[in-house]
Amino acid sequence: MGATGDDVGDTQEAIMHATYRALCKHGYANLTMQTIADEFDKTKGVIHYHYDTKEDLLVAFLEYLLESFEQSLAAIEGETPLERLEAFVDALLFGPPDRGQFDHWELTIALLEVRSEAPYNAEFRRQLSRNYETIEATVVAIVEDGIEQGQFRQNVDPEQVAVLLMTTINGARMYQVSLDRDDVADIVRTALEAVVREWLCADAPTDE
Amino acid sequence: MGATGDDVGDTQEAIMHATYRALCKHGYANLTMQTIADEFDKTKGVIHYHYDTKEDLLVAFLEYLLESFEQSLAAIEGETPLERLEAFVDALLFGPPDRGQFDHWELTIALLEVRSEAPYNAEFRRQLSRNYETIEATVVAIVEDGIEQGQFRQNVDPEQVAVLLMTTINGARMYQVSLDRDDVADIVRTALEAVVREWLCADAPTDE
Repeated sequence: MGATGDDVGDTQEAIMHATYRALCKHGYANLTMQTIADEFDKTKGVIHYHYDTKEDLLVAFLEYLLESFEQSLAAIEGETPLERLEAFVDALLFGPPDRGQFDHWELTIALLEVRSEAPYNAEFRRQLSRNYETIEATVVAIVEDGIEQGQFRQNVDPEQVAVLLMTTINGARMYQVSLDRDDVADIVRTALEAVVREWLCADAPTDE
Repeated sequence: MGATGDDVGDTQEAIMHATYRALCKHGYANLTMQTIADEFDKTKGVIHYHYDTKEDLLVAFLEYLLESFEQSLAAIEGETPLERLEAFVDALLFGPPDRGQFDHWELTIALLEVRSEAPYNAEFRRQLSRNYETIEATVVAIVEDGIEQGQFRQNVDPEQVAVLLMTTINGARMYQVSLDRDDVADIVRTALEAVVREWLCADAPTDE
């Protein structure tokens, strides 16, 4: 094809954006290679050249999202572990500060679509699990750092904290897009601040 | 039709069970009136007599689940608000003690399917919101009771507690069926016990 590595990268990036738009517009149940091609400025053949099936394409899309998210983690700032943890919670709950290209709530709907297929699709589960483990490891590292620096209690279990924060944020994002109320994420953010302060922080009194 | 009220109730209950089995087996994307009829011992005409569309049927299914869940709440026991709250968390996370007819994780997958359609479907959002509000009100009442009895802190916001618990449980159930790990619900249960103890209980020391 005579394409350079950069060209391939650009084409794949364009296909990822087309996939995102098609998924937002039609939902998983009505997503086809054609509806993805309709959002793409080259032919369907170009998509098939890069991805054999819709499933391959969606697994690549999940991987692309994970990489984008990992890059955006670099933009998360905070002098202390607590500040970094709070910035991380905000990035997961409301979208990373420099995400730019994706609307956070549209993306949440698209991910909910893929997630609802995961019980039937081992490849989706595998990629969603990889995304989950990568983000969990980042939260665990922040909590371990906080324990080592004495900002967090010695007796908290970093994995337990990470699982709790991630499940709560995941649940809030799912509710936010599937219920007729738009205050769930804000209430959860306030509640998690209180939980982190009371459960995690070493300066909160403890009876142990 | 000469059907008594009881007959109608029995038929509708049988249709609800057929809907559940079809949803578990085929997923939302492949669910049709025919796949539901295949799980039902009467004709498709009987289903159409009761429900005009697949959407009507699924809204009725959500309503049926809510009623079943409300009935199972009666089986939740606990002498104190804390015991009732913990029993309620367990019922939401692992299924109510007397649910009998539905497998909790199959039901979670079926609900995830319906939830993933909700962003595109106002009727699903309306019924999911009704389910959510009903269960939230129950949690709020337990927390208010605990504050009044002095078991929970005076300064916790019952709605905030309810939203946090429900989003966390929702997130855990979604992860449990869509990731390649089966320990999320157990870890969340342990973490929520710690959170309730540290954040909610009045006998935990407070700095206010």
